[in-house]
Amino acid sequence: MNTSDVAELPAGHPLQTGRTSASPLVTTYQGVRGDVTPVWLMRQAGRSLPEYRALRIGTDMLDACLDPAMASEITLQPWRRHGVDAAIFFSDIVVPMKLAGVDVSIVAGKGPVLGSAVRTAQDVAALPVLDESALAPISDAVALTVAALGDTPLIGFAGAPFTLAAYMVEGGPSKDHIAARTMMHSDPETWQALMQWTSTVTGAFLRAQIVAGASAAQLFDSWAGALSLKDYVEKVAPASKLALARVHGLTYSISGATDAAVRTVPIVHFGVGTGELLKAMHDVGADVVGVDYRIPLDEASRRLGGGVPLQGNLDPALLAAPWPVLEAHILDVLERGTAAPSHVLNLGHGVPPDADPAVITRLVKFVHDNAAAPAA
Amino acid sequence: MNTSDVAELPAGHPLQTGRTSASPLVTTYQGVRGDVTPVWLMRQAGRSLPEYRALRIGTDMLDACLDPAMASEITLQPWRRHGVDAAIFFSDIVVPMKLAGVDVSIVAGKGPVLGSAVRTAQDVAALPVLDESALAPISDAVALTVAALGDTPLIGFAGAPFTLAAYMVEGGPSKDHIAARTMMHSDPETWQALMQWTSTVTGAFLRAQIVAGASAAQLFDSWAGALSLKDYVEKVAPASKLALARVHGLTYSISGATDAAVRTVPIVHFGVGTGELLKAMHDVGADVVGVDYRIPLDEASRRLGGGVPLQGNLDPALLAAPWPVLEAHILDVLERGTAAPSHVLNLGHGVPPDADPAVITRLVKFVHDNAAAPAA
Repeated sequence: MNTSDVAELPAGHPLQTGRTSASPLVTTYQGVRGDVTPVWLMRQAGRSLPEYRALRIGTDMLDACLDPAMASEITLQPWRRHGVDAAIFFSDIVVPMKLAGVDVSIVAGKGPVLGSAVRTAQDVAALPVLDESALAPISDAVALTVAALGDTPLIGFAGAPFTLAAYMVEGGPSKDHIAARTMMHSDPETWQALMQWTSTVTGAFLRAQIVAGASAAQLFDSWAGALSLKDYVEKVAPASKLALARVHGLTYSISGATDAAVRTVPIVHFGVGTGELLKAMHDVGADVVGVDYRIPLDEASRRLGGGVPLQGNLDPALLAAPWPVLEAHILDVLERGTAAPSHVLNLGHGVPPDADPAVITRLVKFVHDNAAAPAA
Repeated sequence: MNTSDVAELPAGHPLQTGRTSASPLVTTYQGVRGDVTPVWLMRQAGRSLPEYRALRIGTDMLDACLDPAMASEITLQPWRRHGVDAAIFFSDIVVPMKLAGVDVSIVAGKGPVLGSAVRTAQDVAALPVLDESALAPISDAVALTVAALGDTPLIGFAGAPFTLAAYMVEGGPSKDHIAARTMMHSDPETWQALMQWTSTVTGAFLRAQIVAGASAAQLFDSWAGALSLKDYVEKVAPASKLALARVHGLTYSISGATDAAVRTVPIVHFGVGTGELLKAMHDVGADVVGVDYRIPLDEASRRLGGGVPLQGNLDPALLAAPWPVLEAHILDVLERGTAAPSHVLNLGHGVPPDADPAVITRLVKFVHDNAAAPAA
């Protein structure tokens, strides 16, 4: 690493002080297998929790994301209830778009909807520039959360440039993201300009969370599974790399440590249905690859060359199965996870809104009570 | 093949008389590479055509499917306009469900919606038995269509048991089919009973089309890509095999031919995002595997062992690209298709509703004018 490329985390950051740097989550993300497999769950905060539904009454989704006290409280709820090994910052991937000044709202039961779709070179040129001071509510929410979490790490959250762009070109959610996939081939220059814009805003959003105290980060390329490997590598990966470059510049060193202890903040990269893309998604600069439930972890590790820490990959559909069925599935995932150097247990997709919170609490306890088999 | 397992096609069937048995589509499906690559497009009939939109005014989708004259006319429209090498029977995968007496309708802009979701053993036990005489409007529509098509083959159309079941358990369309995927693990006996039911009705629907004159058939497991390979093989493939067994019993022999010319009707099996499942989808009894746009045909052929005829795999997103971009893509797909013993050009997903029909006509002509490179 060229030291001129890096900027140190601020004094008092939980990684800098060592408060979270020895936590099971951070060390596992760094490739060190401990006695217990750390566990957190995508969408652990949100609609599955009654305390979340109560808190959200009367507050719009984006307003909740931009109210530091509320975003922090929602982030902490699943940690208090389930005892997970990490909190993940509660937000939405369109938040940095909103903070840049794009007309976007989140429609209940539908998802993000833009005032107007971004389709032409003129549309992209007219996109507002993000004033990073607008990220203050995010930094404030993270600071509040990190203070409450103590030595439990907070994971920063951001959407990847393609997934943001897919919403922008379509003007809202879509099944096959065909408008965005059409633009990348029909008008490659406009596509590239749009990807430059999304990588800048989402990279700044993620960096702000880390500077304010997040000890790791996850980049969600939720819709990357709609792409062929060729399109991913040529039209999408460079922008994801650019977004992560804004985060990789941030390093920390624990007081008294040697140079070897200077590390970048660990980054997880995740998408749905991305079994064909795992290696390419690692290659953009991720430290850990998140795997959905479609391929088993031993196969995922093989595709990644055997040296990459993994996260995943319980099937959310099993959360509603009788406990013995779910338990057998958890044990199978833990066992297959030993094929990787280290493994953070998670779902292969988000917690379904109608999941029983008691099952999730039981799952977390079960994982903590069952030491993983040692790596072969 | 055990001759006691087979039933011959009726006299006068286009395959039996030889009218379509030497057509480019049928011979290519049988693994014989000709001078020209045959081409048809999934959803070639329907919303992209102005003559379709005009005909459908004032007629509900399921009513259109069950009106033999209208279903036949819609099936023929893209053949007349584009000169494709096959027509595919215009219908909907829920039609056999409707004909069995299930309360299902198709809501514009949403898709199939059931009066009530099928969730319990009691719900499955209460499903009506399909009286095969109810399939008369289907047989009538096919007969009308085949008479008009002459020596152009008609492809029969049906949904695979899992995709039908996914709609039934969810009660309508869903993004991740989690209710169905939950049932297969939570209540495997009810799941199996439901899959038995869906395989019976959809198998009967497909068989009726073939008996009435279809020269090939395509089974659409649209949502199979939501499954892991393990779940597909254990919980889904047996039902697809059962559905196809009802079709495989049908053979034809061309007058004067030897026993070697006795063949089953060729069956194509297709799903979206099924790169991990191609071999398993072939193994249920398909002759040809349809490949979506996510993996190239040479890689698909490799996964299938190199001996399976393929169909696909143009990216529908490219239909809206400038012609030189689309042309280069077509040539690339044709070239990669030479890795398989034979190849029928198609899209990797359906024609988008806003596709320009003139582009599709041009695409078909371009493919017909460009002989495929010989197999290596």
